[in-house]
Formats: sequence, C-alpha cells, structure tokens
Amino acid sequence: MQFSSLLIEEAVNAFASLPGIGKKTALRLVLHLVQQPPSESVHFAQAISTMRANIQHCTTCGNLSDQHVCSICRDQRRDQSLICVVESIRDVMAIEETQQYRGLYHVLGGVIAPIEGVGPSDLNIDTLVQRAQHPEAREIIMAISPTIEGDTTIFYINRQLESVDVAVSNIARGVSFGGELEYADEVTLGRSIVARTQL
Amino acid sequence: MQFSSLLIEEAVNAFASLPGIGKKTALRLVLHLVQQPPSESVHFAQAISTMRANIQHCTTCGNLSDQHVCSICRDQRRDQSLICVVESIRDVMAIEETQQYRGLYHVLGGVIAPIEGVGPSDLNIDTLVQRAQHPEAREIIMAISPTIEGDTTIFYINRQLESVDVAVSNIARGVSFGGELEYADEVTLGRSIVARTQL
Repeated sequence: MQFSSLLIEEAVNAFASLPGIGKKTALRLVLHLVQQPPSESVHFAQAISTMRANIQHCTTCGNLSDQHVCSICRDQRRDQSLICVVESIRDVMAIEETQQYRGLYHVLGGVIAPIEGVGPSDLNIDTLVQRAQHPEAREIIMAISPTIEGDTTIFYINRQLESVDVAVSNIARGVSFGGELEYADEVTLGRSIVARTQL
Repeated sequence: MQFSSLLIEEAVNAFASLPGIGKKTALRLVLHLVQQPPSESVHFAQAISTMRANIQHCTTCGNLSDQHVCSICRDQRRDQSLICVVESIRDVMAIEETQQYRGLYHVLGGVIAPIEGVGPSDLNIDTLVQRAQHPEAREIIMAISPTIEGDTTIFYINRQLESVDVAVSNIARGVSFGGELEYADEVTLGRSIVARTQL
C-alpha cells in the first residue's frame, strides 16, 4: 500500500499492529478519524494512553483494576467465602454478565500448557492457595474451559488445595440450554448422561 | 457489557466508536494493549493524535497531505497536463497502486447524490474547473464509480468544462481482466459489446 502522507502511513501502521486489523481496515479507521472533528481523535488517543498508564492488576485476585484492589474484591456485599477461579479477565466479565454469581474471583492468567511453555509457576496459583487458607474462604469454584489443558490445571490446583480446609467444585458440564440434543457433540452428550443429576 | 474498571470501559468505548468495531472486538483490542508494554500504547495513541493534529487537505487537489501541497502535486516528474478526477483519497491510493498513471489527481470528496443531500457545491468542482483552465492542463480523466450518482457527477462536470479548452475522458468500462465472461453481469457485458474497441 502506497501512502502520499507519512502521517497517514504511521497511523495506519499503528492500527494494523493490533490483532485482527489489516492494512485496509486500518486505513478505513484512519480515514474515519480524519473525517471527524480533531477533538474526537484527541479523546480517542487519550482514552487509550490514560488506560494503559493507569491500569493495574488487582493484588488480590489478578483482575484488571483502576486501583490497587479491584472493585469486585472491594465490594463488601459480595460473598467473601466463595472464590471462582477463571483463566482470564474476559471470563470474569462473562460470569458477571450472567448475574448469577455474587462471590469473588481469582484470575489465573491462563492454563497449564506445557507445549506452549506455560507451567504452574507462570500462573497465579500460589496466591490462590494463600487465599484459600483464609478462614473466611469456604469454597473454591473452578470455572475453567473444559479442555485438556483446563482439566490439567483443575487437577493441579485441586492437588495443591488438598491440605487446605476448603471445598473445591467444578462448574456443571453438559448440554447447552436451548440447544437441540441431536446437535450436541458426542463427548458432551455422553458425559451429560454419565453425570446426570437427580430431579 | 459490565466492566470492573472504568479505564477499560472508556478505552473499549473509544474503540467501539470506530466504524465496524463492536464492543467485543474493542475489548479484545484493549486487552491486547494491556498485555503489551506501555510504550506500545503510547506509540499507538501518539500516532493517532499526531496524524489528526497535522494532517491537511492539499490546497491544489484535495488529497490528504502532510504539507500545504501534497507530495503528488509537488512531484515535478509527474505529467502536469493530466488530471485524474476521483471521488476519494482511497481512489487515489488504488490508482497509485496500479503504477499505470503518472499524472496529477483531483479529489472531489464524493459524488453528486441529491437523496443524501450532496449537491455540486459540496464537492471540489470549482477548483477543478480552475485547474482545467490552466494552460498546462490538456486532459481531464474521469475515474468515478460507474453508478447513477457517479454518472450524474461526470455529466455535470463535463458540462462545466464545455467552455474550457481541455479534453475530457472516462476510464474504460467493460469486463474485468481474468474474470469468466459467463459470470460478468448483464449490464457490464452488454455495454462492453456496444463499446467494443478496434483491435
């Protein structure tokens, strides 16, 4: 792509460095900003740089936060005895979206994946064990993706928590609500029969 | 979407205000920036704000430019007698990409579209007529999209240039190179027969 303007070229390259944005999309975004009043670009750039400069990881749970401790951990109305273990911040948001959970979280920052070079020491597992030892903690809920790496992680954490006086549970796995049974994959359907629950 | 961080929320909203970027994509981009070193976000924000603050429209042709007059208009090696009329900056880039044209450009900034409230006075047509009157100008090439609005614009500009001593041409319309004839649309194929050229 040839640019008659170096300024445009640099802005396009900046956008194109983001994942999933190619040069053509980047150019479309830049030309959009050019058509808008300059204040819009100033606001846009400021939101990004302010965010990056001030964002931090919650020292308790590892969630992204504006402060030292995140708003979820600070919320005293939440059930302090429940800790839901998730892979990433995105999972925290997905669970919050359901409005079904009022406990706390613990963000691991990934799952154990030896092939990709991610071992237990790369994840926030030590801090989880510390939190589980707190007298207030009653149950650790594992909300990890049902993959081989996810199950490995659950197994590892469960072993670490064996000596701690805390219940460890796993979120339910089975057929999706609203899905047709015949379209559910074999493994899910098979497991959902084995793990059936009493009515 | 619920955010536990106001900083993240504002950055997501900034990205989501761009065309074609939804909240989920915006969040993905923001989380990507969080995972990168802060310098990356600083560089990104700076590229955008510097671009918007300094970019200008070339006073001659209307192209986006770092300076008062764009690099194409300043280039004395280009054929100063040819002016290619296009709708937008994107078309300039598309034609430059072909490396088949070494003349100058004139960016209209759109086409005449009464339904959308775009009249001739909203476009850079007056400046085009002025440029066409320059003794050096020999030919005006219309490279406008072959739509009803585009043809209206070509017709209007052609009439404005009637009294000016300059040739006016239209880029060739016909079947695409490399395309199968049977898949060409009827109108294009029909017109390509009517407008056949001698070998």
